[in-house]
Amino acid sequence: MISPEQVKPSQQGWEVVSTLNAGAILYQGEVLLLARVAERPRPDDPDEVVAPMLDMLSDPPAMRLLHVRRSDPHLVGGDPRLFTYRGQTYLTSISHLRIARSRDGRRFSVEDRPALAPTAWYEAFGVEDPRITEIEGRYLVTHTAVSAHGIATALASTHDFRSFARHGLIFAPENRNVTVFPEKVNGRYVCYHRPVGHHIEAMDMWAAYSPDLQHWGEHVSVMSRRPGHWDSARIGAGAVPIRTERGWLVIYHGADESQRYSLGAMLCNLERPESVLARSAEPLLSPEAPYEVEGFFGNVVFTCGATLRGDTLVIYYGAADKFICGAAVSLTELLDSLPESPTS
Amino acid sequence: MISPEQVKPSQQGWEVVSTLNAGAILYQGEVLLLARVAERPRPDDPDEVVAPMLDMLSDPPAMRLLHVRRSDPHLVGGDPRLFTYRGQTYLTSISHLRIARSRDGRRFSVEDRPALAPTAWYEAFGVEDPRITEIEGRYLVTHTAVSAHGIATALASTHDFRSFARHGLIFAPENRNVTVFPEKVNGRYVCYHRPVGHHIEAMDMWAAYSPDLQHWGEHVSVMSRRPGHWDSARIGAGAVPIRTERGWLVIYHGADESQRYSLGAMLCNLERPESVLARSAEPLLSPEAPYEVEGFFGNVVFTCGATLRGDTLVIYYGAADKFICGAAVSLTELLDSLPESPTS
Repeated sequence: MISPEQVKPSQQGWEVVSTLNAGAILYQGEVLLLARVAERPRPDDPDEVVAPMLDMLSDPPAMRLLHVRRSDPHLVGGDPRLFTYRGQTYLTSISHLRIARSRDGRRFSVEDRPALAPTAWYEAFGVEDPRITEIEGRYLVTHTAVSAHGIATALASTHDFRSFARHGLIFAPENRNVTVFPEKVNGRYVCYHRPVGHHIEAMDMWAAYSPDLQHWGEHVSVMSRRPGHWDSARIGAGAVPIRTERGWLVIYHGADESQRYSLGAMLCNLERPESVLARSAEPLLSPEAPYEVEGFFGNVVFTCGATLRGDTLVIYYGAADKFICGAAVSLTELLDSLPESPTS
Repeated sequence: MISPEQVKPSQQGWEVVSTLNAGAILYQGEVLLLARVAERPRPDDPDEVVAPMLDMLSDPPAMRLLHVRRSDPHLVGGDPRLFTYRGQTYLTSISHLRIARSRDGRRFSVEDRPALAPTAWYEAFGVEDPRITEIEGRYLVTHTAVSAHGIATALASTHDFRSFARHGLIFAPENRNVTVFPEKVNGRYVCYHRPVGHHIEAMDMWAAYSPDLQHWGEHVSVMSRRPGHWDSARIGAGAVPIRTERGWLVIYHGADESQRYSLGAMLCNLERPESVLARSAEPLLSPEAPYEVEGFFGNVVFTCGATLRGDTLVIYYGAADKFICGAAVSLTELLDSLPESPTS
């Protein structure tokens, strides 16, 4: 639905390398996406790698480029997305969030300017992977905030998708895939989040509660990876949970040891979102099409948002970290497809 | 001051391998330590490694042992403290917290039974590294909570150090070295914490704020590692911050790339604890004595607590992850020793 060629870079002389992982919401009769746009300076020297970042020491903060010769012994190549230089990890592109609108949910017009761009010290490497939650008459945006200090999650809010209030970091590094539920549960706000361990490396889904959306606690493990399955290595909430009669429906991503990312569904107790009622035995969607298998980072389908109109759920997803795609499914059929036991 | 031989194991047939990292507070005219006690079954087969853990599937939760043959190809040895088996990291001992009391702050009597032992799913691998904060007429204990789900931080509280209320997890994995300030700052509770990244691996000190001690947010980076110094690889708050006329005084630990842990001091703005005013150029204390250099995990001095009586600050510290030691310093001399600039 959206590819890098359709999107104007935000900086002169730059190129958009990826359009991916979009938050999605129904707004004023349209589908509104908050798309992640990853860009970088057009490469002019094949013998070097470049990391764009916000320099917080200049006033106002300005975009700065780190150039490293590929032959530099202090360079450790990562994958297309990142490299490590003198012990510090950098990204090869920097992301912001861009609004795209569509009446039919298929043909999108992308705005020419960023809606949410990096501005704070904790966003110096970029703003990524937004989720949009409509709650109490406003729209919350949780998004990944990346910097040399780590990968954290920040909160913004808006009433009109023109001006955004920024509310700072709500989860410290490393934490992403934060999705706030669209209503309070038992009097508190609730979200899913995906902390990551270092010494004990468990990439599982957790829930947290909050009295005010700013401060979070009561952390509880919700769901673990499944050894031997498509979601054996890491999992994280994708789209904002959808209330159904049978429970909260969550589209989540799972990756296996080969970093192949698929999408599945889970159903959780309406009163206790940390209690999992059912979970997809097989993925709903796996990388199969050429644009899902090859791209900026291949073999990935990853969602940050879905819309429900009537019985039709449209899952917007990033394919191969390069394209924004959509997949439609009947909500009833999806719910009927879920096994009765969460462990099967 | 305290060594493993002085401490009764909590389980029949077990041995205490380490007494270390004690929270410290002045209570009823005595120095009260909440000491971390690490124990394990007495090894009876040199050809296997054993991980003790709380089995949450039994009712009530019971201690269970994982035995792994050293020749097992799925075993990856870590260091004396841990190993990885089939992709999951386990600890070779399990810790609880034990009260020790002393009139003179030197000779301690250790209670025979644990004060805070693992009980919850997030403590299945142990309860570690407590900090004690006296605030608003009660005592808070923040402690590391370790399980297969990661290394997180939990909160407990007490009025009398006999019965403790447990308040669940306040920081999701991976996060430790959480120290709550002994008073509100600008109307909110505040703490230092030490999140750890995975994809961007920054082991730095952060601050967070809370309206109620249960829910935390407003995360802000406080202080980073210093390349080329004794605190180049990781840092974390040690003792609970002490209010002085010149600012909040914090004893913190720093490690270099060889995992040599030393202690230093930092001074922070009284109204804005995330603003660092000064920082030790050289360590206050480094592993030098034989009992600091060799032990369960050598070359470590690590603190969770200090007491101030008059001008004398006594820093209680774990040495080589095996012994509890104390070091006295004049508060005035310590403050005078700090350089004027935080970056020097």
